[in-house]
Amino acid sequence: MSDTIPTTAKQLFSTVTEDGRLELAMRTVPVAEPGDDEVLIRVDAAPINPSDLGVMLTVADSNAFEAGENSASAAIPEAMLRHVASRKGVSIPIGNEGAGLVVKAGSAPAAQALLGKTVALAGGGMYATYRTAKASACMVVPEGTSAEEGASSFVNPLTALAMVGTMRLDGFKALIHTAAASNLGQMLVKLCLAEGIDLINIVRSQEQVDLLKGLGAKYVVDSSQPDFMKSLTEAIGETQAFLAFDAIGGGRLAGQILTAMEAAALKTQKANGPYGSTQHKQVYLYGGLNTAPTELSRGFGMSWSIGGFLLTYFLQRVGQEETAKLRAKVGAELKTTFASAYTSRITLEQAIEPAMIAAYNRRATGAKYLIMPQA
Amino acid sequence: MSDTIPTTAKQLFSTVTEDGRLELAMRTVPVAEPGDDEVLIRVDAAPINPSDLGVMLTVADSNAFEAGENSASAAIPEAMLRHVASRKGVSIPIGNEGAGLVVKAGSAPAAQALLGKTVALAGGGMYATYRTAKASACMVVPEGTSAEEGASSFVNPLTALAMVGTMRLDGFKALIHTAAASNLGQMLVKLCLAEGIDLINIVRSQEQVDLLKGLGAKYVVDSSQPDFMKSLTEAIGETQAFLAFDAIGGGRLAGQILTAMEAAALKTQKANGPYGSTQHKQVYLYGGLNTAPTELSRGFGMSWSIGGFLLTYFLQRVGQEETAKLRAKVGAELKTTFASAYTSRITLEQAIEPAMIAAYNRRATGAKYLIMPQA
Repeated sequence: MSDTIPTTAKQLFSTVTEDGRLELAMRTVPVAEPGDDEVLIRVDAAPINPSDLGVMLTVADSNAFEAGENSASAAIPEAMLRHVASRKGVSIPIGNEGAGLVVKAGSAPAAQALLGKTVALAGGGMYATYRTAKASACMVVPEGTSAEEGASSFVNPLTALAMVGTMRLDGFKALIHTAAASNLGQMLVKLCLAEGIDLINIVRSQEQVDLLKGLGAKYVVDSSQPDFMKSLTEAIGETQAFLAFDAIGGGRLAGQILTAMEAAALKTQKANGPYGSTQHKQVYLYGGLNTAPTELSRGFGMSWSIGGFLLTYFLQRVGQEETAKLRAKVGAELKTTFASAYTSRITLEQAIEPAMIAAYNRRATGAKYLIMPQA
Repeated sequence: MSDTIPTTAKQLFSTVTEDGRLELAMRTVPVAEPGDDEVLIRVDAAPINPSDLGVMLTVADSNAFEAGENSASAAIPEAMLRHVASRKGVSIPIGNEGAGLVVKAGSAPAAQALLGKTVALAGGGMYATYRTAKASACMVVPEGTSAEEGASSFVNPLTALAMVGTMRLDGFKALIHTAAASNLGQMLVKLCLAEGIDLINIVRSQEQVDLLKGLGAKYVVDSSQPDFMKSLTEAIGETQAFLAFDAIGGGRLAGQILTAMEAAALKTQKANGPYGSTQHKQVYLYGGLNTAPTELSRGFGMSWSIGGFLLTYFLQRVGQEETAKLRAKVGAELKTTFASAYTSRITLEQAIEPAMIAAYNRRATGAKYLIMPQA
């Protein structure tokens, strides 16, 4: 196939410019020759995940982009500039994961074995027409699976598995998840149903309640309802879910979850004097959909913790062997538990149009964008 | 000595009344006959620690107490009542720790061995003229140590040791402490100097800086100064102190500490993309001097955690044998590292006078109250 491979590729980059703007640009880059243990992948599909948006747009207003030459840019609010200071002048290739066809391979057997196969990988720089990668980083998608079906094989599936894995490692019995109608949230609903794990889904509209109930979710609580705290406390009492993963980050939600956990714990145990229940309560923040400060009222005793959560830290924690098992599980269930549904398919060029940037950053319920670099 | 033992004792209780007030009362209670493995202690000295004030006063305004018969009470703000709902109608004996003379002992050898000895103990209900206790809960103070010198043998010394112990167990190299001019803070300064541990003390006035520098503290940063964040970041860079114990709790300080830790970490490592440094950063809240919500800006990457910290949970974590070693260390260093200085000695009767309640709850730098039940 090498006669059809171009010498240059198109690739998207995100840059904080010297004059304090966020720029998304499409650039022409040379197609690198794969090394011995590498392969060259023709990228066919790469999703836009919430975790991509953080890298792509930082704190720029997605409604304020202006078109430039093969680029678009928006001002970064003055007060937020110090948060992105370390990125100034650095062009970051974007797109965490994707899938495509291996069109060229290095001499190593592991690389040669992938030639002509459709592979999925995570590792950044996937919003590109071509990309080289270590053969060891590639996962061959199962027979009969398209690049589009394999494009989201890493971030969401492994994050859902990491949540369940953390629950087991840390000795919790059930889970709470916020922004639970997301693509990841829907996967987690299916995964927990399959594994018999109680999951409390926190959403913010009746539409989202209906969506998750339709998937078979048992516990769905709507934070926009006046009885939210009561419903949440009852669900925690039933499930003993003292571990939560929160994608919202800002505002009062994480603290409200800890408060509801404490109220549920105090239904079955006496308070330890002024120090509340001895039940350990953990909330992990894995996203920041609300960029406002996190506000904790601390009315939940002394046995609690809140912290950042990152998939890569979980994978380091469990080690390579367990990571390989989790990947294999994703591969085997790519069309069932870990299937992703896309509502919009766009080109690399479209991905840097101001109106499109505003659209895919809106993060509407159920909306999911897939970049098709060959289109 | 039994001929001098009265049949009743005076004891202080804190109660949230049915009509929503916080009442501190002195009551007459029967002096219990010690069981086989128990002793009867004539309490000679018991300190008022910040941790006592939380139990004693809850969220009542310490400037609003009114005198009653052998009592004083203050309204609990309507909005805060739900936080103390579980205490309604429950009288809690107050005073976490203290010391006194064993005047009667049960038949067990361990109890008999304590007769006539001055012992220290923690276990609540120490603001009393007499108190029975398990012999196993008592620590005989070293030869030549008075009850007054032994009164604060548990809470502050063990908390300081727990901070250092947590640092070692969790793999950190140095410590940050807030409200560092407190009695506990001064102990921690002496302990860290003795053990060669770098300690960053955060205080809020020049007076407090001078106080700790006078004890030999190397790193003291003043949060009231405009260059606070810069000084804190530099001190963290020098010491690699990525673990903090915060007594303030509310407001922005815990988040500022994490932000300074992150800035210090990024001086020696590259940011992990948008996820910040991989350096784990931990802040424990062990007090709530500021009752406002904790506010976290989250500009410190994904590798961080903040949580409650309680001495009893630490002691459970390390087990009985290690706890015994820590207690022995406190006993041996009661007149040096773990010496407490008291500025006011008051009676049980004075402890429930409205003006005195306002005074001891002011928590002025260096002020420390000791209740002398026999006075």
